[in-house]
Amino acid sequence: MGLFTKDIKTMNDLFVHQLKDIYYAENQIIEALPTMIDKASSPELKQGFQAHLAETRNQVARLEQIFRLRGVTAKQVDCPAIDGILKEANQLSGDVADKAVLDAGLVAAAQSVEHYEIARYGTMIAWAKELGYADCVPLLLQTLEEEKGADKKLSKLAENRINRAAA
Amino acid sequence: MGLFTKDIKTMNDLFVHQLKDIYYAENQIIEALPTMIDKASSPELKQGFQAHLAETRNQVARLEQIFRLRGVTAKQVDCPAIDGILKEANQLSGDVADKAVLDAGLVAAAQSVEHYEIARYGTMIAWAKELGYADCVPLLLQTLEEEKGADKKLSKLAENRINRAAA
Repeated sequence: MGLFTKDIKTMNDLFVHQLKDIYYAENQIIEALPTMIDKASSPELKQGFQAHLAETRNQVARLEQIFRLRGVTAKQVDCPAIDGILKEANQLSGDVADKAVLDAGLVAAAQSVEHYEIARYGTMIAWAKELGYADCVPLLLQTLEEEKGADKKLSKLAENRINRAAA
Repeated sequence: MGLFTKDIKTMNDLFVHQLKDIYYAENQIIEALPTMIDKASSPELKQGFQAHLAETRNQVARLEQIFRLRGVTAKQVDCPAIDGILKEANQLSGDVADKAVLDAGLVAAAQSVEHYEIARYGTMIAWAKELGYADCVPLLLQTLEEEKGADKKLSKLAENRINRAAA
């Protein structure tokens, strides 16, 4: 949540802080995805990451729209959670030689990123509703649905591996 | 995922590594929850955290059972993801004076923890199935259901706030 939490006094402060936090997180994900695309072996996984990179760029644009709606300058604050999640993803995907095992690790890493975002967007939607920011809710909902969709696609890839292992 | 990822060569290595990673994460959560219980103001939130502490202790025992089933010594490896998520939770809950705002921050922090665990247990269930570790699957499923239940209770608390704000 960054270094500016001492300035949080109201629910609006919390909302704006969280907005800056997820803005940082999404930008870090945009930086991390190209490496994950490079490392992925299965064409479906590679393609899934590529599609999610495009989706994430739209999500950043949507966050910038929310900053404008709230009359706040778009700004990032450090987010130790996404840093930790991506550090873990990098460590894992750096050291695994077997391509099928590496793909399994990449799917796991991506799902932990998706679930972080699902939690955060869920929270932001609740706070936007509580604060009466009706104009922000549909934008946040659209991104939440995309993150849930990305998570489902990753679960499907993991399921296909189980079916192949059983066959 | 810790420092031992260079030793990951097979899906079993990945499974065991993930087991040690979540074992560390659950133990860190047990250390973090008492502070969150202290800081929570709403009785439902305080009680929810208390119930989840008891649940988490059972989940640790379940992980130790899985270590035994796999013939592996129960051991923790560093998990930068949970460290980052809990660091963010601490930063936020350290600096907010308004009790209702602090509670909202605590709910958000707890939901990011729950979603991390939902992602990880989902992955471990997929890998256990792929590896044919049928004896581990029900234990992992039981914990996954508990984590999903905890997340739902937290969403319900956030919803109640929205209803109160609207009233």
